[in-house]
Amino acid sequence: MPPQAVQNIPITRVADGISTTVNDAIAIEEPLEIRLEHGPADSRTVQNISVTMRTPGNDSELAIGFLFTEGVITSANEVGESSHQFIACAENKENVIVVSLAEGAVPRLQNTERNFYTTSSCGVCGKGSINAIRTVSNYSNGDDSGVTINTETLIKLPDTLRRMQQVFEATGGLHGCALFTTDGKLLLLREDVGRHNALDKLIGAALNQNILPLNNHVLLLSGRASFELVQKAAMAGISIIAAVGAPSSLAVQLAREFNITLVGFLRGERFNIYNAPQRIQIPVYEDSYQK
Amino acid sequence: MPPQAVQNIPITRVADGISTTVNDAIAIEEPLEIRLEHGPADSRTVQNISVTMRTPGNDSELAIGFLFTEGVITSANEVGESSHQFIACAENKENVIVVSLAEGAVPRLQNTERNFYTTSSCGVCGKGSINAIRTVSNYSNGDDSGVTINTETLIKLPDTLRRMQQVFEATGGLHGCALFTTDGKLLLLREDVGRHNALDKLIGAALNQNILPLNNHVLLLSGRASFELVQKAAMAGISIIAAVGAPSSLAVQLAREFNITLVGFLRGERFNIYNAPQRIQIPVYEDSYQK
Repeated sequence: MPPQAVQNIPITRVADGISTTVNDAIAIEEPLEIRLEHGPADSRTVQNISVTMRTPGNDSELAIGFLFTEGVITSANEVGESSHQFIACAENKENVIVVSLAEGAVPRLQNTERNFYTTSSCGVCGKGSINAIRTVSNYSNGDDSGVTINTETLIKLPDTLRRMQQVFEATGGLHGCALFTTDGKLLLLREDVGRHNALDKLIGAALNQNILPLNNHVLLLSGRASFELVQKAAMAGISIIAAVGAPSSLAVQLAREFNITLVGFLRGERFNIYNAPQRIQIPVYEDSYQK
Repeated sequence: MPPQAVQNIPITRVADGISTTVNDAIAIEEPLEIRLEHGPADSRTVQNISVTMRTPGNDSELAIGFLFTEGVITSANEVGESSHQFIACAENKENVIVVSLAEGAVPRLQNTERNFYTTSSCGVCGKGSINAIRTVSNYSNGDDSGVTINTETLIKLPDTLRRMQQVFEATGGLHGCALFTTDGKLLLLREDVGRHNALDKLIGAALNQNILPLNNHVLLLSGRASFELVQKAAMAGISIIAAVGAPSSLAVQLAREFNITLVGFLRGERFNIYNAPQRIQIPVYEDSYQK
């Protein structure tokens, strides 16, 4: 586990009315400012893009993943280097990262004023938000590769995530997301105090490994599936999302528009499928419709 | 429960390898654009302030609470009316709300370009973020009212929250926050797909009831305590925060700077106190220091 992800502090623990002072590990949350350097070699400009409260570690992946899921860049080829910039008043912490685009790469900065789905022609209806994603996504036509996962493999994924979530184990305080193959092999796992950051880190890592689109993979989320998370997954071409928690209405709607399989409440031997059940192989189908 | 907070859809439920089609309730997530109307009577201007993904219901409280916790307004007296505006392409949903300030009230709009703690002179260090809050908060000097809560009352609060969380009960998908008196009486409860929205709704309701500062109350959070949530609580003068989940490092640091009692992992008969334990009455203190 990255050492800077956890801090130990003395706390008061109370159990059954008895109080003791103990050392406890908490998850670190610090601001990260993402800056973008771009332009021709003789006149590079640096722009502040966003500040997010994140857990330190994998900052470069976070920045690149964020730029990609927000539609500012469209491939890893557009990125040159990324490096931390140190600012004295921030106690020289690694709280600023500069992503330097390759020469000739033109960032789509109109997407960054807010989240891009709120800067579309109509940012205030769910339909407008979904259409905005369709406009900027590389992978908006759904997946027809015939990818499937069987139930037995699917229900084991949360255990693997929990076993591997090291910072969560220490602090109980981090969201996790993981990328699996359809036979249950763990490829990537990222953690963060912010669930959107965890997913940006994961997608940034996948971009660096040049494995997009992720249409033969399964994305597991440790918590709930919100619109924002499904949006980021859609940008990466993910066709199967499984969440341990509940989905929201707009998450389901977006999954439908993008033909993404969306599983929720994946706990023990049970789960719900909110869209595209054909990608989940289930032993027995009952034909009953229970109200 | 507000009917627009929940949607029923047919889903595929899988349990022990057997699949059935059932109707399931999911929590609604929709964009809300907050607009601010202000200026002299003969030349009012309307400005877009923010778009948030929220669960419909208590929109006016959400908007007013957001404006207050972001430092744009400093009291309920500055607010005249607030009402929904309907936009055809949003299927006439209530996705735009206009908050109209009283004549003469001047919004502190420099705080809205991003979250205000990221627009301070130094938005990229935790210390700078905390100082920014001190600058705009009405209640930055901590609380010396001698308010306390006893352990027996404290450990019962999560049960009350769960019992009363109607939308969560139906969908499993909502964050909740609740305001209690120190003898355990529930005063306010709000739910939302976004935890920051739930707290903005609660603080907006408290502002409308003119009960700020909330320094004789206990705020209960259904999940984790992030910097953002403690920041909003600090803006409302709350002096005791109890979370069912873990706090982050910056949440603890902010609680210390503002002399806020911060309890985490409040589950069953156990909890941790991360700051200002003097406000929690504990039957037995052990003097041991366990590493």
